[in-house]
Amino acid sequence: MNNQYQEFKEYCGKLKDIAASIAVMNWDMEIYMPKKSGGIRGQQLATLNGIYHDMVTDQHFGNLMNQLVRDDSLSFEEKKNVEVFLDYYNKEIKFDTEFVKEKSRLISNAFQSWDEAKKNNDFSLYAPHLKKLVALKRKEAEILGFEDSPYDALLDQYDKGSTAKQVEALFDEVRLKLVPFVKLIQEKEQVNNDIMYRHYDHQNQWDFGIFLLKQMGYDFDTGRQDLSSHPFTTSFGPQDVRVTTRVKENDLAEMIWSCIHEGGHALYEQGLSMEHYGMPQGEYTSLGIHESQSRLYENNVGRSLPYWKYNFSVLKGTFPEQLENEDVDSFYKAMNKVESSLVRTNADELTYHFHIMIRFEIEKMLIEGDIEVEDLPRIWNEKYKSYLNIEVPNDAEGVLQDIHWAHGGFGYFPTYSQGSFYAAQFYAQAKKEMPDLEKQIENADLKPLKEWLNKNIHSLGQIYTSDEVCKKVTGESLNFKYFYDYAVEKYSKIYELELLEKGF
Amino acid sequence: MNNQYQEFKEYCGKLKDIAASIAVMNWDMEIYMPKKSGGIRGQQLATLNGIYHDMVTDQHFGNLMNQLVRDDSLSFEEKKNVEVFLDYYNKEIKFDTEFVKEKSRLISNAFQSWDEAKKNNDFSLYAPHLKKLVALKRKEAEILGFEDSPYDALLDQYDKGSTAKQVEALFDEVRLKLVPFVKLIQEKEQVNNDIMYRHYDHQNQWDFGIFLLKQMGYDFDTGRQDLSSHPFTTSFGPQDVRVTTRVKENDLAEMIWSCIHEGGHALYEQGLSMEHYGMPQGEYTSLGIHESQSRLYENNVGRSLPYWKYNFSVLKGTFPEQLENEDVDSFYKAMNKVESSLVRTNADELTYHFHIMIRFEIEKMLIEGDIEVEDLPRIWNEKYKSYLNIEVPNDAEGVLQDIHWAHGGFGYFPTYSQGSFYAAQFYAQAKKEMPDLEKQIENADLKPLKEWLNKNIHSLGQIYTSDEVCKKVTGESLNFKYFYDYAVEKYSKIYELELLEKGF
Repeated sequence: MNNQYQEFKEYCGKLKDIAASIAVMNWDMEIYMPKKSGGIRGQQLATLNGIYHDMVTDQHFGNLMNQLVRDDSLSFEEKKNVEVFLDYYNKEIKFDTEFVKEKSRLISNAFQSWDEAKKNNDFSLYAPHLKKLVALKRKEAEILGFEDSPYDALLDQYDKGSTAKQVEALFDEVRLKLVPFVKLIQEKEQVNNDIMYRHYDHQNQWDFGIFLLKQMGYDFDTGRQDLSSHPFTTSFGPQDVRVTTRVKENDLAEMIWSCIHEGGHALYEQGLSMEHYGMPQGEYTSLGIHESQSRLYENNVGRSLPYWKYNFSVLKGTFPEQLENEDVDSFYKAMNKVESSLVRTNADELTYHFHIMIRFEIEKMLIEGDIEVEDLPRIWNEKYKSYLNIEVPNDAEGVLQDIHWAHGGFGYFPTYSQGSFYAAQFYAQAKKEMPDLEKQIENADLKPLKEWLNKNIHSLGQIYTSDEVCKKVTGESLNFKYFYDYAVEKYSKIYELELLEKGF
Repeated sequence: MNNQYQEFKEYCGKLKDIAASIAVMNWDMEIYMPKKSGGIRGQQLATLNGIYHDMVTDQHFGNLMNQLVRDDSLSFEEKKNVEVFLDYYNKEIKFDTEFVKEKSRLISNAFQSWDEAKKNNDFSLYAPHLKKLVALKRKEAEILGFEDSPYDALLDQYDKGSTAKQVEALFDEVRLKLVPFVKLIQEKEQVNNDIMYRHYDHQNQWDFGIFLLKQMGYDFDTGRQDLSSHPFTTSFGPQDVRVTTRVKENDLAEMIWSCIHEGGHALYEQGLSMEHYGMPQGEYTSLGIHESQSRLYENNVGRSLPYWKYNFSVLKGTFPEQLENEDVDSFYKAMNKVESSLVRTNADELTYHFHIMIRFEIEKMLIEGDIEVEDLPRIWNEKYKSYLNIEVPNDAEGVLQDIHWAHGGFGYFPTYSQGSFYAAQFYAQAKKEMPDLEKQIENADLKPLKEWLNKNIHSLGQIYTSDEVCKKVTGESLNFKYFYDYAVEKYSKIYELELLEKGF
């Protein structure tokens, strides 16, 4: 191997080591850290983030990449690794160490206060910290530069090239097709999902979640599951990928689908290439593609009839009393009930996208300076009334429900909807290439699906954009049609809709 | 404040942030990390250790300290902070980054293999890794330099100025006085400690341990307890100090005194000055003084009659069936049974020092090159036979019982004995200064003791040596007499010895 490229590779590995250390500190902070240790941890994270930033913006490293990118002896993948990292470098050198440290500190404070605010249902504990963070994110957008909106600069960080206009166009399609389809459903007799709200004890739920993760192929020898208030997946490299979940004893759905969802994220991370550790080729493509992996498992697989053919019998064995008179069909209908709801993570897979629309609209206004942090609870509640016909009873279940903004994640939410649409498109392709796929899933054999995803998606890494990945896998760019066709076919059966008459 | 001193202080804070991050990674590695994630973690720790080493040996930092140390405008404490750190700097610049990274890697491998070896009772899994580590420690001693023995260079790292000759002299006194005293005890009728070996369920033991820690004044808002195979205390700064313990359902003593022991360490760390975070004044004096704090609580307090006057009634409330016909006197005698045993951490406070003597003799030979790693199980077993009259049934409970060598901790063990002797001397002084101390302890009021230790010992930090601390607290250097007097007074009563006749 080229000596300079070897140096580049080793340096990327070191950077990844530091990023992984930061991830360990964050994981600990959210799960096991004592409650009054937040101040010192924030300072320590700020120092590590400062070191990371200093190293990533090191001029020698920049010169090395600028030389390598013109080196014709590199292979296609090697050149791509350099190009993608150089692009990141060119953005990062716009920020000085002080800015990065300040950002880390503000995020730490916002997270701590969000946690307290949510526990005490008191938005005012969080507001001053969020206000500072929003101001900083606007400054970040100014520094990065943008054409139309500062929000574009933030979107771009999660999915290269994505703009507010594109996202708006996507939600236009949602409005045009999904909204009337959901209305049609709501005119029909509602399915009964009482089955989800019986008493299911914590330990048995936990064990069932572990069973599902193992069945998916999540490797507990290089992973673990813990409890947290908001489920998440974190990676310290492909050999240490951790998930969290939450368990509610009177809501079985909460645990099951958050487990499967995080499991999908985790399979992606465990499926990344150790050989390219720290280089773009060893990193996930984009948040949208990451989300496609969680959604594919959560919805296309995890809310399908084949998946539950075997698993419902296991669930029934775990909770024989609660499920005594139930069969897999009633459980399948219950898990696919379409109904406006208060909390995003509990939403069905159709109205879910209305939750995302609300967040997108709010955070765009916030970043564009059209509203203030103090207005958030009022605007949030108004939008829930208008889009979902829901009265928000308190901020803890309203504007405080998500962790994202407390982590500085503005522009993150749209990737959830994009992820669902990618998932439908990928899954349609998988079924086309593997005619036996649903039969395998029925027999609790999820290995072929995991291997297909490993080979066709996970292995690609970040040397391709979301769009390039989508084209490589399915032959075309993201097309809402696949999600829509999936939705119409599935929910027409569940709700016994006569679509032809209605013109669908 | 002097600008240069301010720069020094901030730099020390950053170094401490990195050290704390490494400590978090190590804590996670020993408690929650998945079993096959060790390789990648070792690499990440090596990178962080490399960064720490690069920063601590940074020439600009060295120049800064060399200037400050001649700056007469500094206060006594400020000057001391610089002097102590400069001394550390002058040692560290002897090691290049490669050496430090290699050391971190070897320790990570040794730890992982030790863990496996212990679980499988197979020393051969560990031996090749330990062999590499010993070779590296010998190289470390060469680099540091020494007069008489390479072992001196390692001892010095844990207690500045300590030498093999001094430690030998200390154990000579142990041999001369403690050995015959223990023989005298062993001639008497043995106390019965069956009470410890009834069945005590895990959860209730755990809860009782938490109760004891809270009573000591350990702050769970800035701390937590977890389970680990070998109990330890770790600190990520005074605001995040964590302990671990282990619980055996058929051995109550295991949990209780490891809990109190680690609690003593933790009070020291929680009692360090946040104001001097990262500077010597905010760090513990030495391992010997650290151990004095754990031993003082474990033995002088935690194995005393006053301590159990109240706490035994709580314990009896927790385990009413197991302790039905027992009183505090029988429990007191049981916890102070003097008997040769297999495992150091379970040893009584007298024969304990024979365990340390064995380790001292072995590690000294190992570092001096007189024996090989392959010989360890044989030599270990021979010494246990000769000093303690114990047959070692297997390596898991023999040479594999301690974690220290796997962590590269050669020269560490002697600090345990020194700690016990400091503890006796400090506790005698505390009783002299606080005549009501034992009455307060009887009433479960441990606050005055903690405050006395905070004020007289914890606040001193590392700007004083062990010897200086000892003199400041007690007016004289370490004197074995205090431990011996304590032992004779206590055990004469328990074993009804007639000391005058025997010439004691």
